[in-house]
Amino acid sequence: MKHFEYHQPTKIVFGSGRISEVGEIVKTFGTRCLLVTTPAVPATVAQFDKVKEILLSSGVDVAHFDQVIPNPTTETSAAGAKMALEHRAEVIVGLGGGSSMDAAKAIAVEATHEGSAWDYLFYKKEPTDSTLPMVAISTTSGTGSQVTQVSVITNMAERDKSALYHPQCFPKVCIVDPELMLTVPKQVTAPTGFDVFCHAFESTINPGSGAYVELLAWEAISIVADTLPALLDDLQNVKAREKMAWADTLAGLCIASAGVTLPHGMGMAIGGMYPHVAHGESLAIVYPACTKFTYASAERQYSKMARILNPSLEGLSDQEAAKASVEEVEKLLKKVGLYKKLRDVNMPEEEIEALAKQCMVLPDYQGNPRVATAEEMLELVKNSY
Amino acid sequence: MKHFEYHQPTKIVFGSGRISEVGEIVKTFGTRCLLVTTPAVPATVAQFDKVKEILLSSGVDVAHFDQVIPNPTTETSAAGAKMALEHRAEVIVGLGGGSSMDAAKAIAVEATHEGSAWDYLFYKKEPTDSTLPMVAISTTSGTGSQVTQVSVITNMAERDKSALYHPQCFPKVCIVDPELMLTVPKQVTAPTGFDVFCHAFESTINPGSGAYVELLAWEAISIVADTLPALLDDLQNVKAREKMAWADTLAGLCIASAGVTLPHGMGMAIGGMYPHVAHGESLAIVYPACTKFTYASAERQYSKMARILNPSLEGLSDQEAAKASVEEVEKLLKKVGLYKKLRDVNMPEEEIEALAKQCMVLPDYQGNPRVATAEEMLELVKNSY
Repeated sequence: MKHFEYHQPTKIVFGSGRISEVGEIVKTFGTRCLLVTTPAVPATVAQFDKVKEILLSSGVDVAHFDQVIPNPTTETSAAGAKMALEHRAEVIVGLGGGSSMDAAKAIAVEATHEGSAWDYLFYKKEPTDSTLPMVAISTTSGTGSQVTQVSVITNMAERDKSALYHPQCFPKVCIVDPELMLTVPKQVTAPTGFDVFCHAFESTINPGSGAYVELLAWEAISIVADTLPALLDDLQNVKAREKMAWADTLAGLCIASAGVTLPHGMGMAIGGMYPHVAHGESLAIVYPACTKFTYASAERQYSKMARILNPSLEGLSDQEAAKASVEEVEKLLKKVGLYKKLRDVNMPEEEIEALAKQCMVLPDYQGNPRVATAEEMLELVKNSY
Repeated sequence: MKHFEYHQPTKIVFGSGRISEVGEIVKTFGTRCLLVTTPAVPATVAQFDKVKEILLSSGVDVAHFDQVIPNPTTETSAAGAKMALEHRAEVIVGLGGGSSMDAAKAIAVEATHEGSAWDYLFYKKEPTDSTLPMVAISTTSGTGSQVTQVSVITNMAERDKSALYHPQCFPKVCIVDPELMLTVPKQVTAPTGFDVFCHAFESTINPGSGAYVELLAWEAISIVADTLPALLDDLQNVKAREKMAWADTLAGLCIASAGVTLPHGMGMAIGGMYPHVAHGESLAIVYPACTKFTYASAERQYSKMARILNPSLEGLSDQEAAKASVEEVEKLLKKVGLYKKLRDVNMPEEEIEALAKQCMVLPDYQGNPRVATAEEMLELVKNSY
C-alpha cells in the first residue's frame, strides 16, 4: 500500500438543527467571541440574528464583524483582528461560506501575532499556538473550509492571492447543520456542489493521496452523483441537503490531507481574471478538457470515477472505463446545468493566451498525474473556450 | 441523517518501513523520551533495539521502561511514571500491542499529574494538557489503541479493571508500519484480526455511530473478510499485513468515535475470569450467539455485514440477509480457525451462572440494539458453551 499521512484534529458536529449547540460549544473556548460574516442581506439576516441570539443566551458576549467580502483581503483580516482585540475576543466564530470561514482563520492568527496575516502565508512564518481558537459554521456545501487548515487571502496592494496553510488554522470545532443550507439558491447550490466533486476527485489523483483519502473521496463522489441532480429539482429537500453537506465535509477532509490539481489551478486563474465566474462554474468549464488530458495517466482513478457516475461501465476494462470518464463528466455537468464553455461566460477570445499563462502561476497543475507544458496548457484553455 | 460527532486528532503515519522516521517524529516533541514496552523476548528484542537505535541516532536520549505486562496495572503505570520523571522525559513512546500503548498513555498522565493514573479514570478527574505527548507504534493488528483515547488499566489492590478515557490520551502521532507485524504468529494474528472485525461491526450498531464511523467500519470489515483468511496461510505476506494494519487503524477510529457493544462486554468478562483465553478468542466464542440474539434488532447493519461476507446474499431482503449473518459469521470463524465454544477453552460448566453475572458488570451490553436481561444473558452464555 502507498505510504500516507493523515491528520485532522477538527471536531465535527454534524446534523440538522445542531446550530442550537453553538453557545455551549463556543463557551468551551471562552465567553468573549467575535462572529465573522459577510454583510447581512435579506437572505442571511435571520440566520445571523439566530446565531447571535443563541450565543448571547448562553452567556457569550458577541461582537459581530460583518465586513467579509468574497475573496477576503488583508484589509478584511486587519479590520477583523482589530475588532477582535478591542472586544478582547477569546474565540472566533466563522459563519458562512468559504470566505467567512477563511477570513475567521486569518483573523484568529492576526489578532494574536505580530504583523499581518499575510506574514503567515504557508511559505513564510508559522502561526503559533497563541492563534485564537476558531469555530467554523458552514452555510453552503462547497468549500470544505470547515475542516481544512487553509485560509485563502488576497493582498490588493501586492495584487496577489495566496493562503495561510498550517495546522494551527484547523477550526477547533465545526458545526455542519444542513438546515442552514436550505435557503441556498440553485445558482449557488449547483457550482458549490460540483466543487465538492472536484475536491474529492482531484484528491484521489493528487500525490498526497492514500487509502484514507480515497475512502472518503469515493464516498463523496458517490453522494454528489446520486444527490446533486435531484437536489437541484427540490432545493428544500432536507435529506438531500444533509447528504451534500456530508459530501462537502468528506471532500474538505480530502483536500486537508491531499489537495487539488490541474482543474483547480485553472479554475483559480479563471476566477482571478474573470471574477464574475463562480469558482464551481470555472471548474465545470475546464473539467471536460482536463479529464480528456489526464485520464490515460491515472486510469485506476478515472475508471473508478466513471463507474460511479455510470455503473453500467463495470464490464469495461479500466482503460476503456477511464476513457469513458470524459463523457460521464459531461453528462453530469449537463444534468446540473453547468455544461458550458469560456465563451459562454463572455471571456474575450483574445485573452486565451494570457489565461493559459495565468493557469501556470499556481503550483496546482504540477500535482496532476500528467503535467501540462505551456503549449498543452494553451490547448487546454482553447478546448475549454 | 443521524446526528453524529467525530473527533480524532492523532496524526497517522502509515506505511511499510516508516519506523525509520520515529526519531524525527519524536524530536518534534522533545529530545528526552521514555520508551514503553513489554520485557524483551527473542521475537521482539531486535525490534526494540532497532527503535532505540533510530531514536539515539536522531539525538533522542532514550530510557527504556520494559516492564509492561498483559493487562497493565496501576503498578505498571506508577513504575513507568517514576522512570519518566527520573529521566525527565518530554515524550512517551509506546511500542507494542494494546498493553504497551495503553500503559504508555497511563504513564503520560501519571508522570505529570498528582496521584496515580487510577485517579484519572473516565468517571473521575480529567487529565489536563500537561499530559506528556505520546507517540504510539503498533506491532499487532488488533487493538486499534494507536488511534484511541482509551487506556485500559487494572487495579490489583481493588481487583478492578477500568479505563482512562479522555481526549488528552489520544496519541499525538501513531506510526503504523506493517513490516513490524510480519513476525506476529498465527495464534495471535487470527484473534487480533477477528478483534478488528468486532471493533468495526460493533461500532456500526453502537448508539454513537454515524455516517463517518459507518464509512470506516464497512471498509474495515470488507478488508478483514477479504484478507484475514489468506493472511493466515501466508503470514509473511507484506501486502496482506498492510491491509490488516489499515483495517485495524480504521476499526480503532471507529471505537474512538462510537464504541463496542454486547460481544465485547462478554469477551471482557471471559478474559477477566479465564485469563488464558485471548481477547479475540473470547469474542469469537460469543459472536454466533450474540449475532443470533441481535440481528433482528439491527437488520440494516447485520444484513450489510452478511452481504460483505457473502456477496451472493445481495438478492435477499434485509430481513433475510440479516438472519443469514449468523451463518456467515460462523463461516468466517471456521475459515480463521476460531470457531469454538467455551467448553473448548476448558471453562468449568458450573461457572456459567457466575460468568453470565460478570457479563453485566461492564456497561457495554447496554449499548447493544437489543439489551439482554439477566435471563437472556444466561442463555447467551449457555449458547456459547
